[in-house]
Amino acid sequence: MSWKIKQFGKKPKLKKPILIEGLPGIGNVGKVTVDFLIDELKAKKLYELFSYTFPHSVFVNENNLVELPKIEIYYKKMKKGSDLVFLAGDVQPIDEVSCYEFSEEILDILEKYKGAEIITLGGIGLQEVPKKPKVYCTGNNKKIIKKYKKGTKIDENIYGVVGPIVGVSGLLLGLADKKNISAISLLAETYGHPMYLGVKGAREILKILNKKTGLNVRLEDLDKEIKDLEKEMMKKTEELQEVSRKTAMKKLKGKIGEGEMSYIG
Amino acid sequence: MSWKIKQFGKKPKLKKPILIEGLPGIGNVGKVTVDFLIDELKAKKLYELFSYTFPHSVFVNENNLVELPKIEIYYKKMKKGSDLVFLAGDVQPIDEVSCYEFSEEILDILEKYKGAEIITLGGIGLQEVPKKPKVYCTGNNKKIIKKYKKGTKIDENIYGVVGPIVGVSGLLLGLADKKNISAISLLAETYGHPMYLGVKGAREILKILNKKTGLNVRLEDLDKEIKDLEKEMMKKTEELQEVSRKTAMKKLKGKIGEGEMSYIG
Amino acid sequence: MSWKIKQFGKKPKLKKPILIEGLPGIGNVGKVTVDFLIDELKAKKLYELFSYTFPHSVFVNENNLVELPKIEIYYKKMKKGSDLVFLAGDVQPIDEVSCYEFSEEILDILEKYKGAEIITLGGIGLQEVPKKPKVYCTGNNKKIIKKYKKGTKIDENIYGVVGPIVGVSGLLLGLADKKNISAISLLAETYGHPMYLGVKGAREILKILNKKTGLNVRLEDLDKEIKDLEKEMMKKTEELQEVSRKTAMKKLKGKIGEGEMSYIG
Amino acid sequence: MSWKIKQFGKKPKLKKPILIEGLPGIGNVGKVTVDFLIDELKAKKLYELFSYTFPHSVFVNENNLVELPKIEIYYKKMKKGSDLVFLAGDVQPIDEVSCYEFSEEILDILEKYKGAEIITLGGIGLQEVPKKPKVYCTGNNKKIIKKYKKGTKIDENIYGVVGPIVGVSGLLLGLADKKNISAISLLAETYGHPMYLGVKGAREILKILNKKTGLNVRLEDLDKEIKDLEKEMMKKTEELQEVSRKTAMKKLKGKIGEGEMSYIG
Repeated sequence: MSWKIKQFGKKPKLKKPILIEGLPGIGNVGKVTVDFLIDELKAKKLYELFSYTFPHSVFVNENNLVELPKIEIYYKKMKKGSDLVFLAGDVQPIDEVSCYEFSEEILDILEKYKGAEIITLGGIGLQEVPKKPKVYCTGNNKKIIKKYKKGTKIDENIYGVVGPIVGVSGLLLGLADKKNISAISLLAETYGHPMYLGVKGAREILKILNKKTGLNVRLEDLDKEIKDLEKEMMKKTEELQEVSRKTAMKKLKGKIGEGEMSYIG
Repeated sequence: MSWKIKQFGKKPKLKKPILIEGLPGIGNVGKVTVDFLIDELKAKKLYELFSYTFPHSVFVNENNLVELPKIEIYYKKMKKGSDLVFLAGDVQPIDEVSCYEFSEEILDILEKYKGAEIITLGGIGLQEVPKKPKVYCTGNNKKIIKKYKKGTKIDENIYGVVGPIVGVSGLLLGLADKKNISAISLLAETYGHPMYLGVKGAREILKILNKKTGLNVRLEDLDKEIKDLEKEMMKKTEELQEVSRKTAMKKLKGKIGEGEMSYIG
Repeated sequence: MSWKIKQFGKKPKLKKPILIEGLPGIGNVGKVTVDFLIDELKAKKLYELFSYTFPHSVFVNENNLVELPKIEIYYKKMKKGSDLVFLAGDVQPIDEVSCYEFSEEILDILEKYKGAEIITLGGIGLQEVPKKPKVYCTGNNKKIIKKYKKGTKIDENIYGVVGPIVGVSGLLLGLADKKNISAISLLAETYGHPMYLGVKGAREILKILNKKTGLNVRLEDLDKEIKDLEKEMMKKTEELQEVSRKTAMKKLKGKIGEGEMSYIG
Repeated sequence: MSWKIKQFGKKPKLKKPILIEGLPGIGNVGKVTVDFLIDELKAKKLYELFSYTFPHSVFVNENNLVELPKIEIYYKKMKKGSDLVFLAGDVQPIDEVSCYEFSEEILDILEKYKGAEIITLGGIGLQEVPKKPKVYCTGNNKKIIKKYKKGTKIDENIYGVVGPIVGVSGLLLGLADKKNISAISLLAETYGHPMYLGVKGAREILKILNKKTGLNVRLEDLDKEIKDLEKEMMKKTEELQEVSRKTAMKKLKGKIGEGEMSYIG
């Protein structure tokens, strides 16, 4: 199926934009980072993407109103260097084929704006909470890795540290390569527990983005905002888990024996 | 795929109809409510919907005959206020995409009748049987929530109480919003056990619908009918579970070791 | 996708044919019965059906050669009464949509031959081996049930005994109803264990078919052949289970901890 | 969906080519064998196949760069007898339908080169490490089995030893039969543990291929290279498992109780 894309405002002129992706994933490290940046930089909404290949549910927001799952694209014009484009959202497409199609769609949009580069963000799930999360990187060419390593503590020796990179964060890198767009993935260590929010990992990634893309977000703001973020993200995480819990429950129902009593009241 | 829709009788003229949805879900709260209303109000069947994206099985009814799974639309003309349209059925579409397509189909039908409003019904599964089930609501705008809260005990502070609303009950709200149709979901507490029938929750919802839509169904009738309903619904619930049990069994077969003896007789 | 149908020999003229279905299912009761009948009656192969929606594997046969999964249609001209058409095979289509499409395809074929009736066969899985399996029936109208009950011990009080009838055996009844073709399902009790072959149940169904369709198969032959049948069917059953076992293993692989030693030799 | 096929270099003229398939499977026996042969024979890359029905992830290679999953076709011109074509890759298509479509695509390519024969390679998973792995075979006709048995220790009595052959290794045999292309499958015993690499089984298969296809690969080379192969393959195996682990984790998340504490740092 094709994607429903809604544009907000006029098409901006963007200067060699860099796409920064932060969809849900391990520890929601990418999502925490990008949602914070959109807020902090007061980035402008450009597109809303919607598809029947999103989970078939609605979220209840803080105003007690429902919202369909959506993925959004924001942009922020920068004084110096490349403008920034952010890919944020509540969900990832539900299956393999739609995940590929979605990633292609994003690359098509980026090409229209003559996108220069892609940075995808994610987490590496450890068995315990990391004291000081390391940030690893991989990319679709050596040059972009060299560029981002310069002056930062990113570790490029990722081979053997992570397995395959699943979902949009991985596919954007692989598919961008076919279009000769440089792409890098920054992956911060985080605790692999499904309820754990990788805010500490997000902070490490922000430091790097600050240095390399001229963001200049104040980390003090981040520290203040973390408390709120925690609450809201915690909520979202639980909601996302609720979906799988319900699906799991449906599947489990069939395994409950006939001997069980049922109560009707 | 497209939906097979069979019309019964002539197209009625409906006065600003309100759609009330009650498909299978947690505790079957919505299904119990809407099936009861259709019976009690002697609502007329308008459409039967069928699709290959329904479960691939047939039900055996009380006459020992088989029936394909189906979803039906009934209507009831009201003396005062909006006419009522009911969405009832044995099943929900099997996957994400068909669930979205089905919900769009229902909205298209509703738009043809210049539908004014949508009420979806469901349950909130608790860890134990609620003594007096509370009814929560969420909607796609503040106005409809205000309207239904007035004079009732509906609790609108649902954020944090439920996770995402999965399936048709949720999607109808989200997709209606794109068409500027007001929609609300009434969710009654019920016991989350898969064998539990949420009749008590349904009764609380009926009280609210009685008051707000001029239904005037006699709750004494409900109390009398509950015994029968229980039996029939119990049966249906077991049948629905049988489907998942069989599917689960199929999957389990592969895990049974080679060492197991088999008996052929 | 469409079905690949290969015809064998010339199109025969069939006299009000009755379709008897026996695809894999609980205890393979239907499959055992129909495979035996095809053999015993020396029924002629008419069609071979194949589809990409069959399991993606090949079976190894007794000649150590591979065979793609297939479903076949045979026919037997009868001296008196309706001719018989048999639906036999190794597999059922893999999912809901393809199961519906396949059943429609079969009905289309049957209509071309002016098919008069459908009998689907299956098993009802009990917790233990039944001493003398009962045969239950359900159908898409009362008349066909009456016809088959006359002079036999079929029990029509099946409501509450079985849940939904899943797969082709069920769908053929439901979909035939839309085309005004009478259809009945004969379901014999059998042991619900995945490794158990429902030969005893099949024998009870054969007695009924013998009486009602003028088959005249000698049950003594059946008793002699059972030993061979057992071996072959046992084999097939194990192979079918192997498929799910492999699928299950694939899924389990992901759950095996990193701590496990691996040996490379 | 259709397959994206990228050709490398000019279309070669091939002499009655034999296709040798070695995609991932039990113990990766086929993959180990074919990857080794491509290396050892310095086979030339002819095609790269890509599809949205591959797993939606990228692999990190030894250079710390990402690679999309891909399947490749190589060829090697032989001085005597048939030229060889190799089917190698990281993955198999994700589901039944795409697995059939992929196999048809491969057969179409082979027919363009007037392919004479197909050899698919795989493993038979045992409960323990085999001391000296036996090689079994099955095929789509007796003649090819006879040809490959001559002068080798291949055991053709495979009926009852293996269940269905799942995936491309099996389908290529079944579908080739419809096109009158002879095809055989060589299956070496290996340990069924998901972390075990079937290098010993691969060695047995190589001996047979050496003798029957005039490969003349030096087994001493194999023995030297095994150490490196082990490391690299081990890595790939772990990565493939990582994908299923992540998928499994996603599914498990829903089962984690509400009582669990979550830590946010």
